[in-house]
Amino acid sequence: MPHLHLEYTANLTDLPVEKTLLRLNNVLMASGQFASEFDIKSRAVKVENFQVGTSLSPRGFIAVKLSLLSGRSPQIKQQLSQSLLAALQDLGEWPADVQVQLSVQLDDMDRESYSKVAIG
Amino acid sequence: MPHLHLEYTANLTDLPVEKTLLRLNNVLMASGQFASEFDIKSRAVKVENFQVGTSLSPRGFIAVKLSLLSGRSPQIKQQLSQSLLAALQDLGEWPADVQVQLSVQLDDMDRESYSKVAIG
Amino acid sequence: MPHLHLEYTANLTDLPVEKTLLRLNNVLMASGQFASEFDIKSRAVKVENFQVGTSLSPRGFIAVKLSLLSGRSPQIKQQLSQSLLAALQDLGEWPADVQVQLSVQLDDMDRESYSKVAIG
Repeated sequence: MPHLHLEYTANLTDLPVEKTLLRLNNVLMASGQFASEFDIKSRAVKVENFQVGTSLSPRGFIAVKLSLLSGRSPQIKQQLSQSLLAALQDLGEWPADVQVQLSVQLDDMDRESYSKVAIG
Repeated sequence: MPHLHLEYTANLTDLPVEKTLLRLNNVLMASGQFASEFDIKSRAVKVENFQVGTSLSPRGFIAVKLSLLSGRSPQIKQQLSQSLLAALQDLGEWPADVQVQLSVQLDDMDRESYSKVAIG
Repeated sequence: MPHLHLEYTANLTDLPVEKTLLRLNNVLMASGQFASEFDIKSRAVKVENFQVGTSLSPRGFIAVKLSLLSGRSPQIKQQLSQSLLAALQDLGEWPADVQVQLSVQLDDMDRESYSKVAIG
């Protein structure tokens, strides 16, 4: 906890994926909501097959899901969501010919049944 | 919003992935539940490593998850789920030697903490 | 139902993926919670791009999500989570130079809007 999933469509060819994940993790740490940086587990997946809407015009998206153990307030969740979206918007250059949508979803994980162990 | 995730096992070699996503998006638009086709973001992921049950006989699946902002009625969700499942069933030919399971799950996304922006 | 998703980072190069999925499915069957082994649909995804925390030291993770139709008790969910985690811990050898985290999350799927069909 937390887990972050980032999906990006394959037509966002200039996305600096590693840098983006590190940046999002730094945003999460800066929020003060997480005790240890070690707990933040983020991954990015390139989406090769996608369809935005019913049009065939060039479109793409980045979709982030942040999964937290249940219990945080709506205000905290809103702030985290907006901070992550702001970091995505700051990524810089987007393809000129692709309509890009950025989104951030917060997801509660059931606290009682979450199990974890660190090895080594 | 909405987001649709489709997973299909790699042994469904004849699945027309792009056509399927477009068809599912059309089903969603036809439901009348979504104001703009542009909002529908769908992706398909081929699952290379999978195990259905505890048998080694040939099996496969398509699993669709439709994520909606919270607030829709149980009836609407049921209708959306059944419409998507019907569209999957209509895809046509399945491998003769693979037991295929199709499923559709609806998932609520927390509305208050969902953030989105469109670029360009 | 149930659906199991396993993500593992690409630096866990010795992970026996197929064997792991079969083992987890056997754990689920042994729980007595599921009527038919055929219903258990599990997949593993290798995560090529990931970032654990804000450090650049070698780290990795396995993250399991078990999705069940809503309605099971917190005790049952805890037991399932701990059984799956124990099975992951039993996998054996981990890379000596990678800090590995294992986690198991339980996820409720809305029962009323879940649709399924088996073909052939």
